[in-house]
Amino acid sequence: MSRVAVIGAGAVGTYYGARLAQAGHEVHFLLRRDYDAVAAHGLEVRSKDGDFRVDAPHIHRSSAEIGPVDWVICALKATAIEAARDLIAPCLGPKTRVLALMNGLGIEEQMAGWFGRARMFGGLAFTCINRGEPGVIHHIDYGALAIGHLDDDPAEVAAACALWDGSKVTVSPAPTLREARWRKLCWNIPFNGLAVTAGGVTTDVIMHNPDLRAAAERSMREVVAAGNADLEAHHAPIRLPVDIVEQMMATTDAMAVYRPSTMIDFVDGQPLEVEAIFGEPLRRARALGVPVPSLELLTALMRTLDPARRR
Amino acid sequence: MSRVAVIGAGAVGTYYGARLAQAGHEVHFLLRRDYDAVAAHGLEVRSKDGDFRVDAPHIHRSSAEIGPVDWVICALKATAIEAARDLIAPCLGPKTRVLALMNGLGIEEQMAGWFGRARMFGGLAFTCINRGEPGVIHHIDYGALAIGHLDDDPAEVAAACALWDGSKVTVSPAPTLREARWRKLCWNIPFNGLAVTAGGVTTDVIMHNPDLRAAAERSMREVVAAGNADLEAHHAPIRLPVDIVEQMMATTDAMAVYRPSTMIDFVDGQPLEVEAIFGEPLRRARALGVPVPSLELLTALMRTLDPARRR
Repeated sequence: MSRVAVIGAGAVGTYYGARLAQAGHEVHFLLRRDYDAVAAHGLEVRSKDGDFRVDAPHIHRSSAEIGPVDWVICALKATAIEAARDLIAPCLGPKTRVLALMNGLGIEEQMAGWFGRARMFGGLAFTCINRGEPGVIHHIDYGALAIGHLDDDPAEVAAACALWDGSKVTVSPAPTLREARWRKLCWNIPFNGLAVTAGGVTTDVIMHNPDLRAAAERSMREVVAAGNADLEAHHAPIRLPVDIVEQMMATTDAMAVYRPSTMIDFVDGQPLEVEAIFGEPLRRARALGVPVPSLELLTALMRTLDPARRR
Repeated sequence: MSRVAVIGAGAVGTYYGARLAQAGHEVHFLLRRDYDAVAAHGLEVRSKDGDFRVDAPHIHRSSAEIGPVDWVICALKATAIEAARDLIAPCLGPKTRVLALMNGLGIEEQMAGWFGRARMFGGLAFTCINRGEPGVIHHIDYGALAIGHLDDDPAEVAAACALWDGSKVTVSPAPTLREARWRKLCWNIPFNGLAVTAGGVTTDVIMHNPDLRAAAERSMREVVAAGNADLEAHHAPIRLPVDIVEQMMATTDAMAVYRPSTMIDFVDGQPLEVEAIFGEPLRRARALGVPVPSLELLTALMRTLDPARRR
C-alpha cells in the first residue's frame, strides 16, 4: 500500500483520491474551505458505479502536516500552478513521484523545473465529476485515467499504473505523454473555447449549430497540425491518429448535454485555464510555424473573457 | 428643393434627414414609437457643430401617407431588410432614387431586386450619433457621408452628392460602391466582431490589448484579401488601398473610447446585424475561395450570440 497526498482536492482530486483510499491506500487530502465539513462527515462519492464513503479520511490544512509520501497527486486548477510548488514541496522525499492530474500543456515541464523530470507524471482524466455540498462528489460518467511519464520511461509508466491496481479506476498507460496531452487538447481547445466564446453553451449546442460545429472542426484540425508538428520536433515515436477529428466529433455527438470545465468556470465567474489549454499550445504552434488562426482568435477572446482578468 | 422620405428614423436616419430639412428640403419622416413625442416637441439635434431644431417636421405613421418622393433615404437596421420593401414601395415614383444608409454588404443588391438597379445608391456614414430621449439626436463626432451608385454611374453619383449641397453634411462620392462597402467592412468586421465576442468591450480595449489588437489586424487582412478578390471578380477599376490596415489601425488608435453599433445592440439585447456585416462577406469570401478563418469563427460566434436567435 502506498502513502498518497492529494493536493488540490476539488472534484477530480477528491474523486481519484477517494478511489485510492477505497482500495486501501493511505491517502492524505490537503483541504482548505471544506476541512470542517469533511472532518465532521467524511467524504462521500455518489457514483454511477455505486456510492461509497471514506469515513475517517486523513485530512490536513497544510502540506507540511502531510510530509513525504510515495505519490503526490496534484489536481489543482492550472490557474493555480504558481502555488503548486510550495504546496507540493513538503510532501516530497527522495523517491516521491508526482502525478499532475491537470488540464493543458506544459504543466509537467514546469513542475520538472522545480522537482526534476524523473519523478514527473501526467494524468489525463476522461470523466464527468462535479462537486456537491462540501465533502460530497458526484461521479456522473466515465472515469478512466491515462497516465504517462514526462520522459516516457516505460518502467515508470508501469509503476504509475500499478498504483491503481485493485482500485475501481480503469487506467491505461500513455506511452507518449506529449501525444496524450495534445490528443486531449484536440477536444478541449475547440469545445472548451467555443462553449465559452459562444456565450456559455453546452457541447450539444455546438454540435447542433452548423456554424459552431464547423468552427469546432476547423479549430480541431489546427490543433492536430500543431500537435503533430510538436511531436515531430521532439522525435516522438507516434503521431495523432489520422481520423482523430472524425472520432472526436462522433464521440461528442454521442455525448449527453455536457458543460466543459472552462465553460463552468466562465459561468461561475471563476478564473479560466486559458494559458494551459490555449496560451501554451498557441506559443508552441507559433514557434513551430504552424498557422492556427482559430486558436489565435480563441486565445485572444478567452484571455479577455477570463473573469480573473476582468476583476 | 427635393422631396425626401426617411424610412428608418433611428439616430442615423433622423440626423441626416434633419440636416436636409435644415438645408430647406421637404423631408418626411416615417415614425413609429417616437411619433407622439416628435409631434409634440419637434426634432432636436444636439451637435458638436451647433445644436439645431426642426420645429414642425413632416411626420407620418405610414409610408402610404408620404407617397412618392424624389429621394428615399432608407436607414433601417440591416436586420429589418425584409421589411424595407413594403416600407419603401409606397414612396416610389418613376424617378425616385433610393439611398441605402445601412451597414454591410448586399443591401443595395437586394433592394435592386425589388426596385431596379438604376435608382439604387449606397451611403456610408462615418459618424458617431446616438439617440437621446424621443425626438432628440446626439451628434457626437464626425458626420461625413460617402455615396456611391450601385452601377457606379458617375452622373448618378454626382446627382446624389448634389442633394446635399447647401447642407452641413460633408459628402464625398464613392466612385466604386463595392470598394467603399468593403473598405467599411475592413473596420466593421474586426471591431464590431471583437467588441461583441470579447464580451462587449469598447474599441480602446481592443487597441490596448495585444491579443485582441493582433486579432483585429489578422481579421482585417482577411477582409482586405476577400474584398480585393471580390473587386477583381467584378472587374472593378480599383482595389483597397495597400496600406489600409495600417491606416485603419492608426485611425482607431486616435479615436476616443468608441462603442461599435453592434456592440451597443449586443449590450442592449437587440438583434445584431450579423448577416449584412459578417454573413454576406463570408459567403462571398467562400465563393471566391479566399481563406478567412477569423471571419469564419467570428461569424459563427456572432450568429450564436445574436440576441435575436437566443430568444
